[in-house]
Amino acid sequence: LGDDIGFFEAAEVIGMADDAARSVRTKKDSSLVRAAELVRDGRASAMISAGNTGATVASALLRMGRIKGVSRPAVAAPIPVPGSHPTTLLDAGAMAECQPGWLVQFAQMGSAYSSVRYGIESPRVGLLSIGEEAEKGTALVKETHALLVALDGIDFVGNVEGRDVMTGAVDVVVTDGFSGNVVLKTLEGGLKTIINAVAAALMSPEASAFGAEALDLLAPLAADYDPDNTGGAMLLGVEGVCLISHGSSSSTAIVNACLAVRDLIEAGVTESMRAAVSRSVKPH
Amino acid sequence: LGDDIGFFEAAEVIGMADDAARSVRTKKDSSLVRAAELVRDGRASAMISAGNTGATVASALLRMGRIKGVSRPAVAAPIPVPGSHPTTLLDAGAMAECQPGWLVQFAQMGSAYSSVRYGIESPRVGLLSIGEEAEKGTALVKETHALLVALDGIDFVGNVEGRDVMTGAVDVVVTDGFSGNVVLKTLEGGLKTIINAVAAALMSPEASAFGAEALDLLAPLAADYDPDNTGGAMLLGVEGVCLISHGSSSSTAIVNACLAVRDLIEAGVTESMRAAVSRSVKPH
Repeated sequence: LGDDIGFFEAAEVIGMADDAARSVRTKKDSSLVRAAELVRDGRASAMISAGNTGATVASALLRMGRIKGVSRPAVAAPIPVPGSHPTTLLDAGAMAECQPGWLVQFAQMGSAYSSVRYGIESPRVGLLSIGEEAEKGTALVKETHALLVALDGIDFVGNVEGRDVMTGAVDVVVTDGFSGNVVLKTLEGGLKTIINAVAAALMSPEASAFGAEALDLLAPLAADYDPDNTGGAMLLGVEGVCLISHGSSSSTAIVNACLAVRDLIEAGVTESMRAAVSRSVKPH
Repeated sequence: LGDDIGFFEAAEVIGMADDAARSVRTKKDSSLVRAAELVRDGRASAMISAGNTGATVASALLRMGRIKGVSRPAVAAPIPVPGSHPTTLLDAGAMAECQPGWLVQFAQMGSAYSSVRYGIESPRVGLLSIGEEAEKGTALVKETHALLVALDGIDFVGNVEGRDVMTGAVDVVVTDGFSGNVVLKTLEGGLKTIINAVAAALMSPEASAFGAEALDLLAPLAADYDPDNTGGAMLLGVEGVCLISHGSSSSTAIVNACLAVRDLIEAGVTESMRAAVSRSVKPH
């Protein structure tokens, strides 16, 4: 452990099932609240949390504050794409119900984030819907679509569907926090189910002659889909770096989150978010 | 081909990208419209469509009519669960925006459908949300949750998340048509991506010694997740049997849809739907 790593004590704990807003208000000496304060005060460069996501969002929002002009923050989650950089999905759960203007800012911030994190010059941005046609989807999707078509500064390619999220068809998928969280957890559950089924088949007696070799060959593939290796999701729109790691994170996941945070800070991620939302007329 | 199979001509075609409501109104001699009329007139026992889903729903709704008391119809899609019967997901795309009372009826119809189709005595019904707690999710989810807790006649187990959809944690997952369609297509895309990646790895030169054997062993697994083998989704809440097959259906898929339709009719699926929605006070 290097000399330059300091420790700060926190006596309280916000549990995974605690109410987000209430716990941040009442448990002021929890690590979730203290970490956000250290970032706000310039004593830490970033906070990383594998704890209660709602409380992490609330703590970062209340202690660090929103970037000027940002209506609502959003969680930008990496979706693995075989043979390519991850697709950025946002909002993955910060705001369950959204307004069109918020989604427009998610598109701006998501595009800037995809550039900073994965080095993509002009990220292709898609809006999640249930058909490619502009007239399909909810009122929220239709209004957001019209605003994004009229927006300068990002490469909006139109609506995308759930089946496009893992194919690399776009670099950024914009949606409300309910749908985004549903996508993230559906993929997580579905991939886990099929990876487990493949592993069970290859460990069965029928596969005794070749199962071990096949599993070795497929191991890197399973690693690609392991949330431990993605570096975590970032909360965009707050005045500081806040990374959200999976609730079941291993030590590898936290190390990868630290490495991601270092790169993001060096690349000026917070400055990029400020620039992204100031670039155009403020959406209504 | 048996003597008892009749053919009925239809001169017009509703394309996959055609507007649903408009095409059903203007293309009255399309097979989609004619098939719904044959069911309405008792000249066909059911309609099966692998075409435009929106137009299929519109045609069935306009020609067959709604079951008395049903606010809105819903598409009930089978989600494969390894080693078990499929989970019924509804609405998978008929109604993009829903009201709480509609979702309550989806729960009633989905529960009855799960019983009829998979022989489950008392299906466990979950409401899709972004956390298990009753206070999480959108206003729609919270209001629906309260109504379902107070409802008799179904086994409502509470909120479920996207990760529970493929695990068999519940027999029925209730949600609005936007989220349901997103879940269905996200799983479809995600599973296809990983199945293709596994197949590519096992067909690579590194796997030459055992790849073919491993692929043979894994083939039944891939078949479990192939929409061709599920028998298709059913439109619930209309006065007749309407099965919706995947747009890329093979002849196998259509045969499986015919077999599913036969079983559903023998089990009295439409009568079960009528009973399901009449069983309790009509939700507001």
